[in-house]
Amino acid sequence: MMLAGFRETAVPHEAARAARLDIEEFHARYCAVLDAGRIEDWPQFFTEDAVYRITGRENADSGLPVGLVYCEGLGMIRDRAFAIAHTAMFAPRYLLHQVTNVRILALEGEVVAAQSNYLVLQTLVDEKTTIHQAGRYFDRFVRADDGRLLLKERHCVYDTLLIDNSLVLPA
Amino acid sequence: MMLAGFRETAVPHEAARAARLDIEEFHARYCAVLDAGRIEDWPQFFTEDAVYRITGRENADSGLPVGLVYCEGLGMIRDRAFAIAHTAMFAPRYLLHQVTNVRILALEGEVVAAQSNYLVLQTLVDEKTTIHQAGRYFDRFVRADDGRLLLKERHCVYDTLLIDNSLVLPA
Amino acid sequence: MMLAGFRETAVPHEAARAARLDIEEFHARYCAVLDAGRIEDWPQFFTEDAVYRITGRENADSGLPVGLVYCEGLGMIRDRAFAIAHTAMFAPRYLLHQVTNVRILALEGEVVAAQSNYLVLQTLVDEKTTIHQAGRYFDRFVRADDGRLLLKERHCVYDTLLIDNSLVLPA
Repeated sequence: MMLAGFRETAVPHEAARAARLDIEEFHARYCAVLDAGRIEDWPQFFTEDAVYRITGRENADSGLPVGLVYCEGLGMIRDRAFAIAHTAMFAPRYLLHQVTNVRILALEGEVVAAQSNYLVLQTLVDEKTTIHQAGRYFDRFVRADDGRLLLKERHCVYDTLLIDNSLVLPA
Repeated sequence: MMLAGFRETAVPHEAARAARLDIEEFHARYCAVLDAGRIEDWPQFFTEDAVYRITGRENADSGLPVGLVYCEGLGMIRDRAFAIAHTAMFAPRYLLHQVTNVRILALEGEVVAAQSNYLVLQTLVDEKTTIHQAGRYFDRFVRADDGRLLLKERHCVYDTLLIDNSLVLPA
Repeated sequence: MMLAGFRETAVPHEAARAARLDIEEFHARYCAVLDAGRIEDWPQFFTEDAVYRITGRENADSGLPVGLVYCEGLGMIRDRAFAIAHTAMFAPRYLLHQVTNVRILALEGEVVAAQSNYLVLQTLVDEKTTIHQAGRYFDRFVRADDGRLLLKERHCVYDTLLIDNSLVLPA
């Protein structure tokens, strides 16, 4: 699939390579924060005007704007992090992200558009590890003044049709 | 395991690094096509004389030539893609590939031999995501005139013993 | 989570990049040996004074020293490899590792500290592929005289709470 709003264009090889390696390192830092349960640190990966969405593949394929999660701007992202951090609805669980198959889709001026495949494994107390969510990130990255990558847009398109949480954790 | 026909030899560090990074980017493009269901574009990743095989690990370990899928030459690969694209035998499903652990096995003149580990996740409508197939690619790559990598040989050796499709999708 | 004894410090970008790529290649070689069932070659990845541990996340989070496996020194690592290689307790099974999300935590003189996420898939004869173990490596690497990376410390912290083997395989 290709998400509406994203398209693949020719990118010079060296620029794509450099961007890909940087993005892999971003994913490792981002996922380490989520897997450690440090949800309060999650907003630090986004720009002020960032958009964060989680949408099922069926809706994404049909171009439907309806999704499971929609945050527009860092304020909404912070609100969501706060809500999750202060909610006792969840059974305790461990998460583990694996992000692979990073692919640069386009360089749009200062912005890098990329796709990556993610798998979130979940383990509840005294249970086996199961697949919590599998899907694709469609991302747009910019650089902060200090050179760090920040997400201007992250659209998680998940294949997994049954999400077994009433309050969805970020991916 | 090491597949018959492949062996590990010493490869200079810098050449191995460059080949590894190129192959990772190849995998990302290749898998994006399959995961998008663009099976008709799958043959573009192969050379004219390419061999594509899928074999269970038990057979591969015993050196048995019997496999689940055997395509010799781009014609057979195209036939297979056509057959899958025009068959309504499948229940609709989403696929997601994760390819990791890329390892350069040998430089054989212009040919790069490599192993990679793959996991194909599958989601049927209204079901949970499950493991469709896990295994190893044993690949031989060459470069097209435009510099792109092409598969001269891909031998998928899967661990998963029960393949639940009568018409096997490429991995 | 961050394991006791490991902490994240600022690492110059280029040094972190170089170390990350080297470690990815180490993981690919290390996992290929385990996945091939070549347990007798497993000790070659460790230094003489290496420590190898496997601990459940619950214990690791509480800073409890109790773990599933504890090897101090190459002698104990070799003993463990020998014991596994000569034990018929296991039903035959295939393993497949996927290692992702490599993250450099610190450069401590000649030592590189890193975290990586691992998934071990397992397939028993005539069964589906299942998740055997998911977790994180907390590693300390040094270089041998010939430039190869060696593990001075590997602490596997697994999420998966039910390990279904009486004699635990290395991860």
